[in-house]
Amino acid sequence: MINITEANKKVVEAFMEARPVVVGTAKAIEVIPGMHKDLYLHAGPPISWERMAGPMKGAMIGALIFEGRAKTAEEANKLLESGQIKFAPCHEHASVGPMAGVISPSMAVFIVENKTHGNKAYSGMNEGRGKVLRMGAYSPEVIDRMKWLNDVYAPTMDAALKSAGGVDIRSLLGKALHMGDDGHNRLDAASLLFTTSLAPHIAKVAKNAATASDVVRFMGENALTILNPVMAACKTMTDAGANIEGSTIVTVMARNGTDFGIRVSGLGDRWFTGPAGQVKALYFPGFTVKDANPDIGDSTITETAGIGGFAMATAPAIVTFISGTAKDAVQTTMDMYEITYAEHKYFTIPFLEFRGTPTGVDIRKVVEKSMLPRVNTGVAHKDPGVGQVGAGVVTPPMNIFEDALVAFAEKYGI
Amino acid sequence: MINITEANKKVVEAFMEARPVVVGTAKAIEVIPGMHKDLYLHAGPPISWERMAGPMKGAMIGALIFEGRAKTAEEANKLLESGQIKFAPCHEHASVGPMAGVISPSMAVFIVENKTHGNKAYSGMNEGRGKVLRMGAYSPEVIDRMKWLNDVYAPTMDAALKSAGGVDIRSLLGKALHMGDDGHNRLDAASLLFTTSLAPHIAKVAKNAATASDVVRFMGENALTILNPVMAACKTMTDAGANIEGSTIVTVMARNGTDFGIRVSGLGDRWFTGPAGQVKALYFPGFTVKDANPDIGDSTITETAGIGGFAMATAPAIVTFISGTAKDAVQTTMDMYEITYAEHKYFTIPFLEFRGTPTGVDIRKVVEKSMLPRVNTGVAHKDPGVGQVGAGVVTPPMNIFEDALVAFAEKYGI
Repeated sequence: MINITEANKKVVEAFMEARPVVVGTAKAIEVIPGMHKDLYLHAGPPISWERMAGPMKGAMIGALIFEGRAKTAEEANKLLESGQIKFAPCHEHASVGPMAGVISPSMAVFIVENKTHGNKAYSGMNEGRGKVLRMGAYSPEVIDRMKWLNDVYAPTMDAALKSAGGVDIRSLLGKALHMGDDGHNRLDAASLLFTTSLAPHIAKVAKNAATASDVVRFMGENALTILNPVMAACKTMTDAGANIEGSTIVTVMARNGTDFGIRVSGLGDRWFTGPAGQVKALYFPGFTVKDANPDIGDSTITETAGIGGFAMATAPAIVTFISGTAKDAVQTTMDMYEITYAEHKYFTIPFLEFRGTPTGVDIRKVVEKSMLPRVNTGVAHKDPGVGQVGAGVVTPPMNIFEDALVAFAEKYGI
Repeated sequence: MINITEANKKVVEAFMEARPVVVGTAKAIEVIPGMHKDLYLHAGPPISWERMAGPMKGAMIGALIFEGRAKTAEEANKLLESGQIKFAPCHEHASVGPMAGVISPSMAVFIVENKTHGNKAYSGMNEGRGKVLRMGAYSPEVIDRMKWLNDVYAPTMDAALKSAGGVDIRSLLGKALHMGDDGHNRLDAASLLFTTSLAPHIAKVAKNAATASDVVRFMGENALTILNPVMAACKTMTDAGANIEGSTIVTVMARNGTDFGIRVSGLGDRWFTGPAGQVKALYFPGFTVKDANPDIGDSTITETAGIGGFAMATAPAIVTFISGTAKDAVQTTMDMYEITYAEHKYFTIPFLEFRGTPTGVDIRKVVEKSMLPRVNTGVAHKDPGVGQVGAGVVTPPMNIFEDALVAFAEKYGI
């Protein structure tokens, strides 16, 4: 007889006790398990080239140009259609990527190590907002920035992280949630904390003063500098709670721009998928809902770990970016308590008198209460080659929770 | 016939439209109006050596040792009692200082220029928390730190500020208030923003990589790095609204550790003083209320300008440092709307759906409603030579508002 409550407790304890530390950077092929020269990772559940959304296709094209395997979008398209390039979800290779989430073999990634359980996760360098590869853009300026990130930024970061002895992301996030961050779309404080903790090391380890200045400036001006290490940190947390027999807690929520997929701890590595939703968004000037691709990216790993949309009550200023009111932001957090197992030990909400953030989505509660997890997200243009057009809030499709619950009942004979 | 409403509007508009930019650093004697080699400035209203509080005496002793005019506390005491050293409030020399607020002739100060009205204000380098000169400590480690701040930190900062073209403090504070700062006792986000905006310049202008690293580390590790420039910025705001005929708005609130003093725009440079209060505080381990000096420092210039205690609703996490609950923090801001003239145009509170902070204390409302301004503050040990013992909340004595109102009625024949 399985004890679901005990299993869920074990899962959520693992989420919370994981202590992810970002320790360095390396090329993907050097560190990501199973990575090889023809493997291109992407966000969300598995998907074929044909079914890929526009921004993911754009990012794949950009990745091939970045790798030097194509000179033009046309050349890249041919290669991508040829079957020579293999695709796999980041999540199946201990990785996560925001938006299109493409990680190609030569790309530099952050190495995040969970000091409690020993598992690791990886995520690329963040390029900033706007016209960027992860949003499907691949113009020369985008590729040039990717190269600078790979050749200058990442090695400097690696040396600085080693000089600093790593940066404890759980501790940093705890502070950032007290500084108006939600931990997903609003990471202004976390990025400043990250920049400020590494800047003294960068000043010392950078090749020269100009490089130190450039790297620190790029970090400081990008409010999402820390998004990728945060996502990898959350991945180590939720991976620590994965594959626990009898648990109904969600360990992955991820979108590939076509499908929204979840995994459930007691159901192992199986994906439950349904159509990715349309984001309720604030659009950048010149763009409307007609330009928007459906929901995309692995960044929902933050909500899976108990922050992001679930911690909106810490981040009322986010409503200027993703729409809504401060009251809505608080209500979102209050609602998420209804569908989660625990209140986080280390992530607390000052405005709710330091109550812990809602942590560990229970598929039973989602179905019983007909209440879906709420997610903050960026919005990519639906066509390859454009980039970000806005940001907003979205929910997964209900069927994936229902399907998972049915599968759970079948597996455990309930 | 005076029009108080019009006069008050003019004052508060000046407060809000002032745009203070920190442009550089210099030695006090080079820039502060009226500074001379025997003049030692202090926080709060005027006071004699005899009536000075312990921490202010300690800071004066430290300042003489720092200046090389005394080798020991004994020597310093003799000089201070001799009448050779002159004392004056910072506020009477376009300056402000936290806690004891001592500025001696050779000390480096930030230069803050109000780009709207052209006036300037000055404030020293912040030493961090704990055993520091401004809290009355003067041990060799305190003096050594002061010397490093003067000889290494301030010149590097000056070069970096010039390279950056200055840092706009109003804009920076607007962001920090959306990141959980109150702008007075909690300046974590503002200090990170300041550090991050200057770090790329410091990397370039510092004498060498080690100095760049040291300066950026000191800035980043001191959550009050930006307190002094913020205070000087607030001083330029409130000075811009000073000396407007017929106004009942408070332009200065300041304490010397013995007396709490205010100035009112329509009453010019006259001080109204009463006894400094005991702070309701959280004490550092090993200290109690018995160790506490009464309320001290010019940092109440932040509340005078519409932030600090008045903006507590932006900073619920501050209650872990100064006591109370998040609910109290919001209530404090709500109360302050009762005694102020305006809601700030540029300083807004996300949790109150971006309502402006309460700005411009009206002495009539304070007296009519029997509601005193609330202030967040650090607490110094009552004896010279010790340092900080805690932090908390405090109010001025009611008599100073009543006295000011009587003086106003007399002056304007109401």
